[in-house]
Amino acid sequence: MLKGKQSILFDDAPYIISSGSIVGKKEGEGPLGNLFDKVEEDNLLGQETWEEAESEMQKEACLMALGKAKVQPEDVRYLFGGDLLRQGIATSMGLEELHIPLFGLYGACSTSGEALALSSMSVAAGYGDYILAVTSSHFGSAEKEFRFPLAYANQRPLSSQWTVTGSGAFLVGKQTSHVRVAGVTVGKIVDYGLKDSQNMGACMAPAACDTICRNLEDLKYQPSDYDRIFTGDLGYVGQSILFDLMRKKGVDIKPNHADCGMIIFDQQTQGTNAGGSGCGCAATTLSAYILPKIESGEWKRVLFVPTGALMSTVSYNEGQSVPGIAHGIVLEHC
Amino acid sequence: MLKGKQSILFDDAPYIISSGSIVGKKEGEGPLGNLFDKVEEDNLLGQETWEEAESEMQKEACLMALGKAKVQPEDVRYLFGGDLLRQGIATSMGLEELHIPLFGLYGACSTSGEALALSSMSVAAGYGDYILAVTSSHFGSAEKEFRFPLAYANQRPLSSQWTVTGSGAFLVGKQTSHVRVAGVTVGKIVDYGLKDSQNMGACMAPAACDTICRNLEDLKYQPSDYDRIFTGDLGYVGQSILFDLMRKKGVDIKPNHADCGMIIFDQQTQGTNAGGSGCGCAATTLSAYILPKIESGEWKRVLFVPTGALMSTVSYNEGQSVPGIAHGIVLEHC
Repeated sequence: MLKGKQSILFDDAPYIISSGSIVGKKEGEGPLGNLFDKVEEDNLLGQETWEEAESEMQKEACLMALGKAKVQPEDVRYLFGGDLLRQGIATSMGLEELHIPLFGLYGACSTSGEALALSSMSVAAGYGDYILAVTSSHFGSAEKEFRFPLAYANQRPLSSQWTVTGSGAFLVGKQTSHVRVAGVTVGKIVDYGLKDSQNMGACMAPAACDTICRNLEDLKYQPSDYDRIFTGDLGYVGQSILFDLMRKKGVDIKPNHADCGMIIFDQQTQGTNAGGSGCGCAATTLSAYILPKIESGEWKRVLFVPTGALMSTVSYNEGQSVPGIAHGIVLEHC
Repeated sequence: MLKGKQSILFDDAPYIISSGSIVGKKEGEGPLGNLFDKVEEDNLLGQETWEEAESEMQKEACLMALGKAKVQPEDVRYLFGGDLLRQGIATSMGLEELHIPLFGLYGACSTSGEALALSSMSVAAGYGDYILAVTSSHFGSAEKEFRFPLAYANQRPLSSQWTVTGSGAFLVGKQTSHVRVAGVTVGKIVDYGLKDSQNMGACMAPAACDTICRNLEDLKYQPSDYDRIFTGDLGYVGQSILFDLMRKKGVDIKPNHADCGMIIFDQQTQGTNAGGSGCGCAATTLSAYILPKIESGEWKRVLFVPTGALMSTVSYNEGQSVPGIAHGIVLEHC
């Protein structure tokens, strides 16, 4: 079951039974707009703050995933959740009323991968028939958390990314579906010493490279064994660095690589610079775009690799670098 | 193996093979001072910032736990780690050089319980022979994160708690020792609507009550089946609320309850008001004080319940309440 240094291939692979995706207005206007379960016209979701709006999205995403599978919250054994905010308040404040025992996570934008990995590991080990994985991000709360107040209307460098307003939830369990989580590759922190928090793609690319190479080595796969390798939110800058790093290792993933941050927005018309980002980016793209193609059998095997840039306003104001981390999830049609 | 609504009793219980504890000067002057593995005279640990000092403590605690067990970092399959800081930077910046695949966690001061639960679940499921759990807190970085700059020298209400400067690390694995993790009870978010971030004991007590009662019900234990029930950092205020709440449920834990936050400092002489707190409080007390008594057989079974107050400066400035969470770890002499 343990494979190589960092991977697990499940003997009794759990399934993604259902999922839910909810996004904001801008995401709804993007290329995937008509694929999301719900597009909110009001980015505050009727709440008073961005943070409460983000909490509300997490809860709604969970309830949508549960509703599709006709599973009640009380039948969910554990919940793995996280977001980008300090002390994970979107998760803490949003999920209380579901009354599900909670493991709070932080892995920056890689958190959807972390949550899916731990949910799958827990189901495969028999720790629950139904386990939820949920993550979220919100443009308003993230700009406030990491950058500038929205009202300041700062200019954004071309390498910057646009935090996705959205939440994706996944019900993982033993009940069969057409998507199974065949395995996971847990990522390490990789630090190339980059310090530009407005160029997160560059900060995360080395971690993506490390996790993808490790996955291929651990499982003895070629890139072509995957129909697609999806990174979370490297964006245009990060993708080109990833290709460079992979080429140095003699691995070519160009033919089947895609990045959630590059497909969720239309860079040309939406002013999103290097692409989308945030815990909600990979999670909503997985739910709305990737899973249906695996369910239908169009893709037989996909490597889903959400990528995170580990930093805070404190760490970068103190001159620390921005290390990256990425977790790999092997999804298969069945 | 699954017990009741929230608990797991392991068929093949993992062991806490070794642990490491490192604390600051004030903790070294407290009642447990001579029990910690290392007392740092310099609370900056030779670093330039409190955050870097906290990172350094996490790394040292891990290396101490590994050193005692003569296990190399490369033999550790996964690491579960967390701290109190925004975006968990003490963990992100401290553990990179160990090169161990990382799951970043956030559960406020309950994180040591969360990390031990997930480490034990992973070892019991066969996901690794050695898995590390580590958490930390630092008085300097926590005051800056949650309250006021230290130089401001603000007055502290009597209900406030003193964040422990310290880190505890635990090597969990299949290799036998005299302490096994017999089971876990994963906690839910419990929100009584309290909004006073300077009275965290009161905010966390309902969660502690919920998890302890759930543990007793799930495992069909009486309080007397435990030699001790340790909460993480309820302090004096939180303990008295916990006793009230438990009495209303007809459960008396007074004879065998203890709180890490109440024993790590001498309230009378150290000016710590309601007691110690922080991810490092329960973790270092477990490592230095509780585990040796279980190892020796003085205590046969202990319920360890780290408690967390879920909040951020943003959530409480926006008028949100401070929900609590607590995770229960059943430790047995063997």
